Amino acid sequence: MIRETWESKAQIARDILAKSIKTEWLVPVDKLPGNHQLNVIFMAREAGILTEQELKITETDATGLVESMAAGEVKAEEVLIAFAKRATIGHQLLNFATEFMIDEALEEAKKLDAYFHKTGNIVGPLHGVPISVKEMVHFKDRRCHTAYVAWIDRVSPEDALLIRNLKKAGALFHVRTNEPQTVMHLDCNNNIYGRTLNPYNLNLTPGGSSGGEGASLGFRCAAIGVGSDIGGSVRAPAAFCGAYGLRPTMLRNPWKGVSLAGEGQESIRCTLGPLTNSLRDIDLFQKSVLDQEPWEEETSLVPIPWRTTERKDFVVGIMWNDGVAQTHPPMRRILDYGVNKLKEAGVKVVDWEPFEHARGGKITQALLFPDGGKSIRKALEASGEPIMPLSKFALNYAKEMNIAENWELNVERDKFRDQYHILMKERGVDFILCPTFVGAAPEHGTAHYWLYTSIWNLLDLPAVVFPSGFGVDPEINAVDGNFRPMNDIDKAEQMKYVPGKFRDAPLAYQLIGKHFRDEETVAAAQIVERIIRG
Amino acid sequence: MIRETWESKAQIARDILAKSIKTEWLVPVDKLPGNHQLNVIFMAREAGILTEQELKITETDATGLVESMAAGEVKAEEVLIAFAKRATIGHQLLNFATEFMIDEALEEAKKLDAYFHKTGNIVGPLHGVPISVKEMVHFKDRRCHTAYVAWIDRVSPEDALLIRNLKKAGALFHVRTNEPQTVMHLDCNNNIYGRTLNPYNLNLTPGGSSGGEGASLGFRCAAIGVGSDIGGSVRAPAAFCGAYGLRPTMLRNPWKGVSLAGEGQESIRCTLGPLTNSLRDIDLFQKSVLDQEPWEEETSLVPIPWRTTERKDFVVGIMWNDGVAQTHPPMRRILDYGVNKLKEAGVKVVDWEPFEHARGGKITQALLFPDGGKSIRKALEASGEPIMPLSKFALNYAKEMNIAENWELNVERDKFRDQYHILMKERGVDFILCPTFVGAAPEHGTAHYWLYTSIWNLLDLPAVVFPSGFGVDPEINAVDGNFRPMNDIDKAEQMKYVPGKFRDAPLAYQLIGKHFRDEETVAAAQIVERIIRG
Repeated sequence: MIRETWESKAQIARDILAKSIKTEWLVPVDKLPGNHQLNVIFMAREAGILTEQELKITETDATGLVESMAAGEVKAEEVLIAFAKRATIGHQLLNFATEFMIDEALEEAKKLDAYFHKTGNIVGPLHGVPISVKEMVHFKDRRCHTAYVAWIDRVSPEDALLIRNLKKAGALFHVRTNEPQTVMHLDCNNNIYGRTLNPYNLNLTPGGSSGGEGASLGFRCAAIGVGSDIGGSVRAPAAFCGAYGLRPTMLRNPWKGVSLAGEGQESIRCTLGPLTNSLRDIDLFQKSVLDQEPWEEETSLVPIPWRTTERKDFVVGIMWNDGVAQTHPPMRRILDYGVNKLKEAGVKVVDWEPFEHARGGKITQALLFPDGGKSIRKALEASGEPIMPLSKFALNYAKEMNIAENWELNVERDKFRDQYHILMKERGVDFILCPTFVGAAPEHGTAHYWLYTSIWNLLDLPAVVFPSGFGVDPEINAVDGNFRPMNDIDKAEQMKYVPGKFRDAPLAYQLIGKHFRDEETVAAAQIVERIIRG
Repeated sequence: MIRETWESKAQIARDILAKSIKTEWLVPVDKLPGNHQLNVIFMAREAGILTEQELKITETDATGLVESMAAGEVKAEEVLIAFAKRATIGHQLLNFATEFMIDEALEEAKKLDAYFHKTGNIVGPLHGVPISVKEMVHFKDRRCHTAYVAWIDRVSPEDALLIRNLKKAGALFHVRTNEPQTVMHLDCNNNIYGRTLNPYNLNLTPGGSSGGEGASLGFRCAAIGVGSDIGGSVRAPAAFCGAYGLRPTMLRNPWKGVSLAGEGQESIRCTLGPLTNSLRDIDLFQKSVLDQEPWEEETSLVPIPWRTTERKDFVVGIMWNDGVAQTHPPMRRILDYGVNKLKEAGVKVVDWEPFEHARGGKITQALLFPDGGKSIRKALEASGEPIMPLSKFALNYAKEMNIAENWELNVERDKFRDQYHILMKERGVDFILCPTFVGAAPEHGTAHYWLYTSIWNLLDLPAVVFPSGFGVDPEINAVDGNFRPMNDIDKAEQMKYVPGKFRDAPLAYQLIGKHFRDEETVAAAQIVERIIRG
């Protein structure tokens, strides 16, 4: 009986998705890749749905697209159709969408073209940029359920503030994207839409919780994506899918109009951040949003404008591993590669000995669920939908505490933040270059180790993820025969590395900056990327 | 038995105070005012302890003093002695100090003079400025108990960050000051030192919880004072004692190194703020502190420098009362006076209809004590000291809630903040001019109504208090025969107004600005004060 109820409710959301798909852009069955074909990136071209021009458009970053539209070389409509086609194929292969909004976006694209035709000007810095958005972010008059079956009836009364900011800057929205149950997995599976896949290797997760965004940007179904990050949920998907991502300092980006169980939890705040196809697009996104002074509506935000900046002559601390779980061989290899490139280029590089990440991990786990996970359980139990293994895993860390215990942990958190900051200053380290995860994207359902990303949420430091340009090559990345585990977690994570399973999975870097110095962090990442990738 | 224990412990702190007093500067008994003499402001002169030059020094604001010292007209030692003498008299009359530190301050003053003699320069923007500090703020190797008998053995390991900032700017610290039990009264009485009195009328409270600071600045025992404010604790004392005060936006001023029961409570944060003898001194204080980038040590602070600014052509909303408790006749009179002056000067003035302050008051009461006051009770019970009536009154509002209930109230708070801000914008109001309290300083033990100050803590708006220049004159401020109570609170507060009881008590204005626009608020207050007071 209960099963029927949640299933029928889930079906409402599935039907909305199904009806929103433009079937004329689907890949014919005979052209679909075979079961052996795990890397489906090539399908964008092979499907034969996109023209050469459309392929070129979808492989251009947002900054480039806006430049082309501003020069009158491409129309917004053309750009939108290209991405909409690619998103349709992407969804067919990866199951990343929760709802397409192509007709409405096309309508808006035509308005932009008319405006440009009439005035010769673009409407704003994101003129005609197609953006995909994690489902939990509100669109007026559309449902928003955050992957909880129980919430499927909820209709959003207005666009989220960030969406309104982006629209005003000229952005278009053609697709909403999948997220895992509880939005507390570095993975992407739920009872409504099921599992989203990684475009570089279907056996692997695209990451999470903004997993649909990872797949979207990885397959280039959108020029920019909007995800949320409380423990790595922007950065893991970006890293796992070969895209770029930013977790900004808390209280910089607008949050108003996002559905989350446990709203009002402020010990570690969730924040919205962009996934992109270039670092300069992160800058473009942030500037476009913050130039609109969202703090004038959402007053809890800190009114600091986005100050696009240069950052030179900095010292990079290299964190080879976090002292809790060692990285997989391919991750070590790309770090090594990057460090050599930086040294060759004359960048000052020092080793960064991680400071008590295990302690930080304990504080983080406690502060992510101080209500004992009750708000999440309540949302799950309201429909009776089954609780998935990774939800159980996450909630396993949830211990209900009282107010005084929460306060004590807030004090602990601040102390840890201060200590970490002072250590960076004492060691003369401006930025920390480190892995985003122990390795490349894990197999579905096995993303258990969050601390490479979540530690920076606790510390509230801006964190930028960017691709190394390398994927896992099983032939050159053998298992490390000399590996000696430091602890059980370390052992468990290392055991997961079976080279053949990770073929082609992208490998990413993470660059960490100082509190509220998001702009400098993005600027430094641009220099570091240029040096490492040439 | 328990009684003996807490009494003997309290005696330790009392002895420290007693030993720290320079008895040679005490007023001879025969020169002390008679019992009929409630306004003791005149005693600074009449006591015959201070020279004419010393009287002049203590009646100069900090900005003026630094100018004189920078010009070589006055020495830091001279300034320190003048204020130390006045503070000694002030304490004798008002019982405002918890510890004098005159010898150490004199030592430092001499170093400043030597530096100036050698270089011709002052060491910093607060060169030689004597500052009094609320007891709860840490001084290295000195005890800090926050008026809890149980905490008297606690010795601070280092100076509070704010103290270090101020020292670096050249400030001197000659006296620490009294605060009420629980630091949650708009009054100033505790089991250790007893009651602090109002220099303008000994039957009235100097306010609280920074009541010692109110008395200190009111009697000009220091050029600047440091208080803390979570519900009005800087502003009520400043207003009640004829001084100036600022509650800055949260997370601007350093907080590290303050003892408070319930540390880690972040729903409504307590913040340190200055009490001064002029508005320009608030600007001087804030700039001197924030120029030192305290966020480089206390990383939870927002890194926004103090941007001294001009503010012209603004609209002032006049909040005649808060819709919950009407003001006393003298308060209405000075508001009326001020509004007329502003209108005459061509300032755009509109009425500000308060927006749901009763609702705000409920949220505030709940969020000030979400642990049900347990942390406070624990600190009280640890010594067995008696709980005072105003502590019982405050704790009466304390209802223990669980984490989820706290989160819901956080959401409610943010919604209220956003609504209030948008209303100010819609009505075109830049600043709100309003009372700091229903009237002048209340009688001891009767300060029950916080909402004229605490509402701005909930809203996290910067609030500046400045004196009207008028005190209560019972002859012209009769009871309002036409008063009709709106509710029981309103009735109770109005009943307290018996004109003769409030003779000479200062009347103050409060100016409210927008979130993080502290600088503009201080700048606007300067213009408003200049217009009203000529």
